[in-house]
Amino acid sequence: MANITTKVSWSSRADESVTAGEGTPLLNGTEQPRHSRQLSEGGSIFQIGRLSTVDLEEEMASDEDSLRGRPKEIPHNEKLLSLKFESLDYDNIENQLFLEEERRMSHMGFRCLEISRWVVCGLIGFLTGLIACFIDIVVEEMAGIKYQVVKENIEKFTDVGGLSISLILWAILNSAFVMVGAIIVAFFEPIAAGSGIPQIKCYLNGVKVPRVVRLKTLVVKVCGVICSVVGGLAVGKEGPMIHSGAVVAAGVSQGRSTSLKRDFKIFEYFRRDTEKRDFVSAGAAAGVSAAFGAPVGGVLFSLEEGASFWNQMLTWRIFFASMVSTFTLNFFLSIYHNKTGDLSSPGLINFGRFESDSVAYNLYEIPLFIAMGAIGGLLGALFNVLNYWLTIFRIRYVHRPCLQVMEAMLVAAVTATVSFTMIYFSNDCQPLGPEHNEEYPLQLFCADGEYNAMATAFFNTPERSVRSLLHNQPGSYNPLTLSLFTLTYFFLACWTYGLSVSAGVFIPSLLIGAAWGRLFGILLASITPTDSIWADPGKYALIGAAAQLGGIVRMTLSLTVIMVEATGNVTYGLPIMLVLMTAKIVGDYIVEGLYDIHIKLQSVPFLHWEAPATSHWLTAREVMSSPVTCLNRIEKVGTVVDILSSTSTNHNGFPVVVQVTDNDEPAKLCGLILRSQLIVLLKHKVFVELARSRLTQRKLQLKDFRDAYPRFPPIQSIHVSQDERECMMDLTEFMNPTPYTVPQETSLPRVFKLFRALGLRHLVVVDDENRVVGLVTRKDLARYHIGKHGLEELQLAQT
Amino acid sequence: MANITTKVSWSSRADESVTAGEGTPLLNGTEQPRHSRQLSEGGSIFQIGRLSTVDLEEEMASDEDSLRGRPKEIPHNEKLLSLKFESLDYDNIENQLFLEEERRMSHMGFRCLEISRWVVCGLIGFLTGLIACFIDIVVEEMAGIKYQVVKENIEKFTDVGGLSISLILWAILNSAFVMVGAIIVAFFEPIAAGSGIPQIKCYLNGVKVPRVVRLKTLVVKVCGVICSVVGGLAVGKEGPMIHSGAVVAAGVSQGRSTSLKRDFKIFEYFRRDTEKRDFVSAGAAAGVSAAFGAPVGGVLFSLEEGASFWNQMLTWRIFFASMVSTFTLNFFLSIYHNKTGDLSSPGLINFGRFESDSVAYNLYEIPLFIAMGAIGGLLGALFNVLNYWLTIFRIRYVHRPCLQVMEAMLVAAVTATVSFTMIYFSNDCQPLGPEHNEEYPLQLFCADGEYNAMATAFFNTPERSVRSLLHNQPGSYNPLTLSLFTLTYFFLACWTYGLSVSAGVFIPSLLIGAAWGRLFGILLASITPTDSIWADPGKYALIGAAAQLGGIVRMTLSLTVIMVEATGNVTYGLPIMLVLMTAKIVGDYIVEGLYDIHIKLQSVPFLHWEAPATSHWLTAREVMSSPVTCLNRIEKVGTVVDILSSTSTNHNGFPVVVQVTDNDEPAKLCGLILRSQLIVLLKHKVFVELARSRLTQRKLQLKDFRDAYPRFPPIQSIHVSQDERECMMDLTEFMNPTPYTVPQETSLPRVFKLFRALGLRHLVVVDDENRVVGLVTRKDLARYHIGKHGLEELQLAQT
Repeated sequence: MANITTKVSWSSRADESVTAGEGTPLLNGTEQPRHSRQLSEGGSIFQIGRLSTVDLEEEMASDEDSLRGRPKEIPHNEKLLSLKFESLDYDNIENQLFLEEERRMSHMGFRCLEISRWVVCGLIGFLTGLIACFIDIVVEEMAGIKYQVVKENIEKFTDVGGLSISLILWAILNSAFVMVGAIIVAFFEPIAAGSGIPQIKCYLNGVKVPRVVRLKTLVVKVCGVICSVVGGLAVGKEGPMIHSGAVVAAGVSQGRSTSLKRDFKIFEYFRRDTEKRDFVSAGAAAGVSAAFGAPVGGVLFSLEEGASFWNQMLTWRIFFASMVSTFTLNFFLSIYHNKTGDLSSPGLINFGRFESDSVAYNLYEIPLFIAMGAIGGLLGALFNVLNYWLTIFRIRYVHRPCLQVMEAMLVAAVTATVSFTMIYFSNDCQPLGPEHNEEYPLQLFCADGEYNAMATAFFNTPERSVRSLLHNQPGSYNPLTLSLFTLTYFFLACWTYGLSVSAGVFIPSLLIGAAWGRLFGILLASITPTDSIWADPGKYALIGAAAQLGGIVRMTLSLTVIMVEATGNVTYGLPIMLVLMTAKIVGDYIVEGLYDIHIKLQSVPFLHWEAPATSHWLTAREVMSSPVTCLNRIEKVGTVVDILSSTSTNHNGFPVVVQVTDNDEPAKLCGLILRSQLIVLLKHKVFVELARSRLTQRKLQLKDFRDAYPRFPPIQSIHVSQDERECMMDLTEFMNPTPYTVPQETSLPRVFKLFRALGLRHLVVVDDENRVVGLVTRKDLARYHIGKHGLEELQLAQT
Repeated sequence: MANITTKVSWSSRADESVTAGEGTPLLNGTEQPRHSRQLSEGGSIFQIGRLSTVDLEEEMASDEDSLRGRPKEIPHNEKLLSLKFESLDYDNIENQLFLEEERRMSHMGFRCLEISRWVVCGLIGFLTGLIACFIDIVVEEMAGIKYQVVKENIEKFTDVGGLSISLILWAILNSAFVMVGAIIVAFFEPIAAGSGIPQIKCYLNGVKVPRVVRLKTLVVKVCGVICSVVGGLAVGKEGPMIHSGAVVAAGVSQGRSTSLKRDFKIFEYFRRDTEKRDFVSAGAAAGVSAAFGAPVGGVLFSLEEGASFWNQMLTWRIFFASMVSTFTLNFFLSIYHNKTGDLSSPGLINFGRFESDSVAYNLYEIPLFIAMGAIGGLLGALFNVLNYWLTIFRIRYVHRPCLQVMEAMLVAAVTATVSFTMIYFSNDCQPLGPEHNEEYPLQLFCADGEYNAMATAFFNTPERSVRSLLHNQPGSYNPLTLSLFTLTYFFLACWTYGLSVSAGVFIPSLLIGAAWGRLFGILLASITPTDSIWADPGKYALIGAAAQLGGIVRMTLSLTVIMVEATGNVTYGLPIMLVLMTAKIVGDYIVEGLYDIHIKLQSVPFLHWEAPATSHWLTAREVMSSPVTCLNRIEKVGTVVDILSSTSTNHNGFPVVVQVTDNDEPAKLCGLILRSQLIVLLKHKVFVELARSRLTQRKLQLKDFRDAYPRFPPIQSIHVSQDERECMMDLTEFMNPTPYTVPQETSLPRVFKLFRALGLRHLVVVDDENRVVGLVTRKDLARYHIGKHGLEELQLAQT
């Protein structure tokens, strides 16, 4: 089982599953019973999955037989919290070294720091914009070549027959691109799969997702998304931009690349989780901004997903990064389009310009919009449920990289085939107007001077298809074309999301929504007098796109702003907001948002905004982990090494107490020290005896901790001789002397609020004499959630 | 002195200055020396004020002479923190009663609560929109009548001579309206003066500004703003909308009106500071939304000004309130304009529609925009400095209500006279086009078929003037008209802000900026070839308006969004953002924003986002107030009454300890109780002995506390007999058993972060044995700030 879940999990490296999770002493010795409980529950989940899925039933039944023999194969991903994920330390460790440094710094010093923060944000925005520009241009060029080749081929064979050769050519071209994309993702960096938004959500929430902000991930992500978009999959290149921006931010802000082994010796002050997380939110915002030309939307996205404590200066910096990013993209694209200086394409996707006349709406259209929101919510929930089953299936059976690559290629081939079939059998011919904005009009069997309308939707990059659905003249599509397109694209997109390729779900969702929205508009127009206000189906396409996207991802505030900024017109603010709200409310009744589903399937200890409402009867005493492994203020090196090496107590934070008692009596708290700090201390052999003998020895500085950040070596790699084991370590200078504490009687919501608002990693629970009785970590809080039967508790597991 | 500062302060009621401020035991007995320090520093401030003011110098010099005799007359408002302002309790008091109630509540109960929160937000939005609509219609109608009367009068006298009669008529009309507005504000509710934004900023920051969210304030505010706008002052009706929205929110969410003595018995759960503050942020957002048709801007305004802990659900509710508010306004205005259902005027101010062609800008215009931002920053700083001196002057000399009314009338008359003179001497005649949008075109001495361009700017409501500056054809104004208008309006607006009338500064700022921006555009066009891209001065008017407003109020993110939403076109997002950033950076070098200046002049203990950067060397030990007045868990009634009655220790929160020691030794903390809770307990005579004797007595419930909220009676009004004084009170059930605590060694930034992020009111400082050694309140934190010479400490004063 461990094997399976490791394979599909975001980090997916077998060698990483060894590195320890957050300290949860509860597990100490109690792992075995948990495991068995898991298994029995796994069965019931499996049943649920089986009851409603249709196409998967066969395989599942056979699996159920086979698994009776080896029950270890049941993956159980929902009622678990993985111990694999650590927390970020958003709270500053205010130990003596830190305070000394801060006190030494002058007012001018802080000013310079602030300025360098702005510089970093500017750089983040600039580089994110450049990456977006690179992706856009490469995709445009390569897709252009591909469609040109296929178009010529189709035209060649239209008259003479033998279009199946064109189909095969198309399918092979697509599969080839997708194969490259899938191979680099599956074999080199599996975390680069998907849109990356769930991972960034987790990171901003304070979860350290392994490998998520590395340079390698960025490279794979960028190449992967180019391949999957050019490969004609039902995907967008927008989601991955958010992830790319985040990686850029994490890299730039640290002033070095661990992968490339280059250290530029700048921005050393920012080498800690607090600053890094702030910059990553700026990067994510810059990514959104570049993707949709929506700088305000980007800021709101970052805040909605990430922020605990809203800080004005931070928000402005995030806004600055967003602005620079959209500006950079805009500028370079204007050069590429030979319109240097004309800043009119601020994002990767551009909904085109809605003229003021066509966007007017009237009061009596509002109920219609709300109805469309409800439809979007239902369709979105359907999408999510289908994708959920599919993901469960994938977790179980499609976990080997080569299988993943094959599935991706299969999807690419099927997409091409379905598209071709749809175009082939479509007889929706439209006259080729003078102002047609079809890039690759396919004539096929249409009369001269006409083109195949179905091909506009299928034989095109998804961004262009969206735009033509929003803007083409009324009558450009007939209803049958639209309904067939909606239907097939819905299932294709659903199948595609979760493949082992880098790809976003925004554009496919918009495309599905725009298609049925336009259909809705056409039907409306057909049942009402000719020149009524709803004659323009483009308006309904926009609303449909919003509804569908909202139904799938369930964002509201940020998505409203993103949509408004992408349309470039605020007139639609109110309807879009209503539609997104409705879609969210309707959808939430059925199933969670797509990203949340995927986060849950990964068993990430995600902290929501508030503790479950009915959790007031729980107190810190029940929630905390205990007993806690504590250290003395002056501790024997051997003890430290033993504690750190112990696999059963793989904690990351240790309360420092005045004197550890033998009989497990609680001792008085005097500080908190992290595993990473202890490791640096051991590595530099900061032992009391050595300090005495070698008086000239350099005092350990904050710099030494920063140099080791963020990849602290494991304890196994540090050699401590038998003599040194007898030395003593003085932790006073390095521990955080003022960790946040709560009394045992504190209610869970109160603990939660403190923990969440300050982005803590460890919260010490003390009794009324300030003695350590327990420790609350992220998992202790994340495991309570509202289920179908009231408050439920998730199990922790070492997956 | 006390008299003077009381008069000008926001609460301004002499009887209220008696009600006690936050507990700051430091003051106990040390008030006298503080007073004297104040005085000596007051002199130096006075010098600074004098060095640079020009027009006030004469009065000031004479005052300096007179005040040597009676030094008590020097008001000193800058280096002080007033003890008059209390904090809001944003942190829930999780005592046994509260926990029992929460535990009793089912999941369904919480759902209903959540739904009622949404209902309340909807109501807030609806009512705020209605109020905005009411103000708008009344202003339109009354201003229409006024301008019509004056116009006819002017036309009558233009040929025959005797225009001075028209001037007098105009001046009298204006003064009459302003008199009414000033009288109700000055005599009935002085806190309704000004825009109300500083007050709401303080409230959202967690300061309980007296009387700020009362019904009476709302009524006075609404009538006052109508009078001042109709009275032709250089003011807008937008700022007051934010205050109005906040009052509506505070009223609706409580389900009762204390002023009207009506209790609807609904929303009782929301009767505490936490919920109320959340609703007030929704109200403020709804106000912004109604004022500018900017729902997203409203949300951002609330968050930028108020939020500590960003909560997703709360943000959505705020957004909902904003949307409903703009929708309501839009709908009712569409009926008023006889275009029912045409939702195209979402706000009180509408910048009109910028067509896509005219809004295009090019890369090489960016430096120009930045330069305009810098100009805006400089002019804004000039405005703020002038207004600062003026305010100091007003605090000193214009503190009697009748003087305030007279000043307001004077300004009204001067405004009319200046406007008239400008129009009279202007010879800028423009042809009366077919599509002129002048409501009241004045022909005056122009030829037939022409109108006076100066009158477009002066003889109009400010909103219309802004619109015509943004949209009129190139050539509608000549440069001289614009420069004269900018100059005069700048000084008029500066003089007007701070008068004892309800009025906002947004529109005047926009108007000044639009005027010089248009001038800038015209000059640009005149020095470049004819058909260049900057031929349209409207674009520069918009940028200028943003620059000027940004230079005065110094908001960035929310203001960008507000401007973008008000223009209805996102194309200008980047330039507006650049301009606002530049204006803020330039302006901040010189002086703070206008609102911050006024907050500082009121000595409000305002908490910024972070502790001063260089404050790491301060610890809780230095910051806290000590010794602390503690109570026993079971305390004698007499002691409680004495402590509450003591004027020297007018604290609002008391740590509850296990056993108060006699020799001032610290005792072990076991809870925290508020003055308001003790008062309710005393009022209901919850004494141990009585409970024993009268077994049937009803147990005190949370409801009793809620009924008393928010106007708890003073201790003096509660009668406790001599016998009762000997009884005991058991506080266990009512105190908060888990107050947040910090160790003595915690650094100031760490204390600050905890305090700010959770919106605390009292933070107990304990030693390593959990014994109470001090108490940190808002004033202890707010008094540290970065001054010219590094970290400075403000003095506390009982103003």
